[in-house]
Amino acid sequence: MIFEKPPSLILLLCQHPAHTQGAAMEKSYVSVFLLLVAISCVLAKDVGKKDTKETNTKPKLPQTLSRGWGDQLIWTQTYEEALFRAKNSNKPLMIIHHLDDCPHSQALKKVFAEHKEIQKLAEKFILLNLVYETTDKNLAPDGQYVPRILFIDPSLTVRADITGRYSNRLYAYEPSDISLLYSNMQKALKLLKTEL
Amino acid sequence: MIFEKPPSLILLLCQHPAHTQGAAMEKSYVSVFLLLVAISCVLAKDVGKKDTKETNTKPKLPQTLSRGWGDQLIWTQTYEEALFRAKNSNKPLMIIHHLDDCPHSQALKKVFAEHKEIQKLAEKFILLNLVYETTDKNLAPDGQYVPRILFIDPSLTVRADITGRYSNRLYAYEPSDISLLYSNMQKALKLLKTEL
Repeated sequence: MIFEKPPSLILLLCQHPAHTQGAAMEKSYVSVFLLLVAISCVLAKDVGKKDTKETNTKPKLPQTLSRGWGDQLIWTQTYEEALFRAKNSNKPLMIIHHLDDCPHSQALKKVFAEHKEIQKLAEKFILLNLVYETTDKNLAPDGQYVPRILFIDPSLTVRADITGRYSNRLYAYEPSDISLLYSNMQKALKLLKTEL
Repeated sequence: MIFEKPPSLILLLCQHPAHTQGAAMEKSYVSVFLLLVAISCVLAKDVGKKDTKETNTKPKLPQTLSRGWGDQLIWTQTYEEALFRAKNSNKPLMIIHHLDDCPHSQALKKVFAEHKEIQKLAEKFILLNLVYETTDKNLAPDGQYVPRILFIDPSLTVRADITGRYSNRLYAYEPSDISLLYSNMQKALKLLKTEL
């Protein structure tokens, strides 16, 4: 009864969504800076891994499900729970993939948590924030980068049509895209009409 | 991009582990009582489901990952995270499947949380408590009942050899089995030697 499930976290990319786009290519110094940021993300992650291996660093208690994305909101624990609740409550599901040591995730979290209208609108969703990827490939239509936000209809259909600004990372958002994220949340609330 | 993932929660059984065994069959009044308990579990769950559909009952904040199984312990959020951490830290993984509205789960939780030696020993594990089942069939070798405790070696092998007292529900524990659970935890800490 042996099973192998290679953890997919090591494949995760924490990068500025636009850093491989044409505009950024022109501004090479920006690219270099962002490349350094991306590398430092990877380094930070490696160091973090070694830490957990060698020492017993304890997180601050209590551990919450919100992880700072909105402490007053109700968060589901797992993908399975989130799917179940979305279907049963007929609410759309919003899944935020992020990493604690990714500065882009952290920056987006800050504006997300401080944006009153978003926090209010988020109450109408089943919410899940994940640091570890699921094995469901439907949640990574164009790769396993972070931050990455996907909406799923209560019919359990991934809303591939609800995207951000970046053609190379369709479901990425920067802090400056927070208004787009807000309107995307409004879009997600208009449920798909599925034929029965 | 439509996918269907039928929630497996409805298949869950919250029952006295011994209620279909020979001993219990003789004491039919016990069986009837336990059957009633089992039915009331199911009813309670159905009512709970309707509640979440119709009203917006909010849980007490903050939502913690421990759910009362040991607030001072470090709990992982998801199965994916737990597997990753078990492999990387070379610690065994302990997965507790339970339900909030199952009296057997609640009773076991109480003794588990109050048992100082167990709480101390639990620090040596990667810990996960789940209300919603994963899709991994390896976690339900003999069915999806609760409470159900499984140990997984850092080599990601389910320890099918670490069982409780009940032949019909191998991974179930009653509050009176807490010493057996403690010695099973000790057994799980003796890691399997896998050949590389």
